[in-house]
Amino acid sequence: MSNFKIAVCQMLITNHKRDNLKKAEAFIREAAAAGSQWVVLPEMFNCPYDNKYFPEFAEAFPGATTTLLSDLAKELELFIIGGSIPEHCEDKIYNTSFIFDSQGRLTGKHRKVHLFDIDVAGGIRFQESEILSPGKSVTVVKTPQCPVGVAICYDMRFPELMRLMALEGAKVIVIPAAFNMTTGPGHWELLARTRALDNQVYFVTASPARNLEASYHAYGHSMIVNPWGTVVAQADEKEGIVYAEVDLGLVEKVRRELPLLMHRREDIYEVRKKGWEYSI
Amino acid sequence: MSNFKIAVCQMLITNHKRDNLKKAEAFIREAAAAGSQWVVLPEMFNCPYDNKYFPEFAEAFPGATTTLLSDLAKELELFIIGGSIPEHCEDKIYNTSFIFDSQGRLTGKHRKVHLFDIDVAGGIRFQESEILSPGKSVTVVKTPQCPVGVAICYDMRFPELMRLMALEGAKVIVIPAAFNMTTGPGHWELLARTRALDNQVYFVTASPARNLEASYHAYGHSMIVNPWGTVVAQADEKEGIVYAEVDLGLVEKVRRELPLLMHRREDIYEVRKKGWEYSI
Repeated sequence: MSNFKIAVCQMLITNHKRDNLKKAEAFIREAAAAGSQWVVLPEMFNCPYDNKYFPEFAEAFPGATTTLLSDLAKELELFIIGGSIPEHCEDKIYNTSFIFDSQGRLTGKHRKVHLFDIDVAGGIRFQESEILSPGKSVTVVKTPQCPVGVAICYDMRFPELMRLMALEGAKVIVIPAAFNMTTGPGHWELLARTRALDNQVYFVTASPARNLEASYHAYGHSMIVNPWGTVVAQADEKEGIVYAEVDLGLVEKVRRELPLLMHRREDIYEVRKKGWEYSI
Repeated sequence: MSNFKIAVCQMLITNHKRDNLKKAEAFIREAAAAGSQWVVLPEMFNCPYDNKYFPEFAEAFPGATTTLLSDLAKELELFIIGGSIPEHCEDKIYNTSFIFDSQGRLTGKHRKVHLFDIDVAGGIRFQESEILSPGKSVTVVKTPQCPVGVAICYDMRFPELMRLMALEGAKVIVIPAAFNMTTGPGHWELLARTRALDNQVYFVTASPARNLEASYHAYGHSMIVNPWGTVVAQADEKEGIVYAEVDLGLVEKVRRELPLLMHRREDIYEVRKKGWEYSI
């Protein structure tokens, strides 16, 4: 079982879609040149994370953003988990991750399942559901290396969804996400480490860089955590690419030595899917 | 909704049952004198945590250990979560927590559901299942303050069981536990904080103190974590009592501001009990 290299592009997002796409392209080319097989972009990488921009920046599939990702995946022979963008579909807007294989084919799609509606006194208020519609899928995608689970930001707070991806075979879980200056310092690393440990997977979070000129201040700190719950690479709040080797042998070793997935008492409890849909 | 005080007795356990019971009694009396309403003891508080001692130290209910706890609960008008002891029942031995109300009545019982069988290269090897039998219950007990979930040590690694306790109404989850010098530094605080945060409960862990003369070196670090995932009190590795105020108003506030339990997508996934039994 071979190792492979993953790149997480912690982009600074602006109010100009064209600039965001140019930057995504530059980062993807840099990651490919550095030998990455998988490249991950952040949540809402073509659009500021702000309800008022989502309708204007939204695209149907295929559109300018997804065509760019598909073309780059094919040209550079990369697996691209395209962060997320506002997706327009049948009069609704979703927060959607489009996923392309190294032939440039759309191989998976995740629409954010849990919308971020919180109101912390003295902290953050955000109500995604005022604009966005929720997805319905548990998303696990095949790759040449291993199955990968994809979910978006607030989705990572729900252990049921994370567990279902692991039970469906994910050995890596990737979360484009934009925690903020309330939830980031409190919960970001904590949750990433525990999800990796509980589900015995590599857990990868991809945040935008912190843009103090934007209305929403992302926490940054994109990271890759191994299945023992140890952070193997982490950004600070600034723009840049974080790289890590994913060692699938370590996934097997941890699952053998601390066999949590095997020790689940399925005679006593059950986690199961209901009412979900295939993502593509 | 009133606050109440909880005491976690991080006892040093020896090879002498009588000494362990004397120490438990002294700690419980000290905790009561300090105004505690709930007192928690560690996992295997009457017995070294070592397979070879479990059969010899095991007791049927009622026995010397449980009678002591019942008498103290009644005399001192305390709610006692009696850590755990090896319990003898019908030719089997369980790792069992006996729980007494302030009239000294047995009000709940949890037999460890997930047995600790791990073998980490260069780290810890322990195989509870060579001696112990597993329990079958999701344990949530009523108290005058709020429902409390109780599980034991390795049980806390399974998010399904933790979630089920929260869904059954637990606002505090208490875990008598003995992590070790491999899993303790790596995972103890991480898991306690995430379980509290995910389930929006106070999460309380009760470890023995570290005894370097014993075969198993407990990590110690008994702690109380609030529903925001913040550690509010924590021991080091030495013997002592850790106190904290449990603020049920904070449970409600966090559940209102960051409504994770409400935002679960029950149309997409489900966690449910199967094949379980009532605990008493």
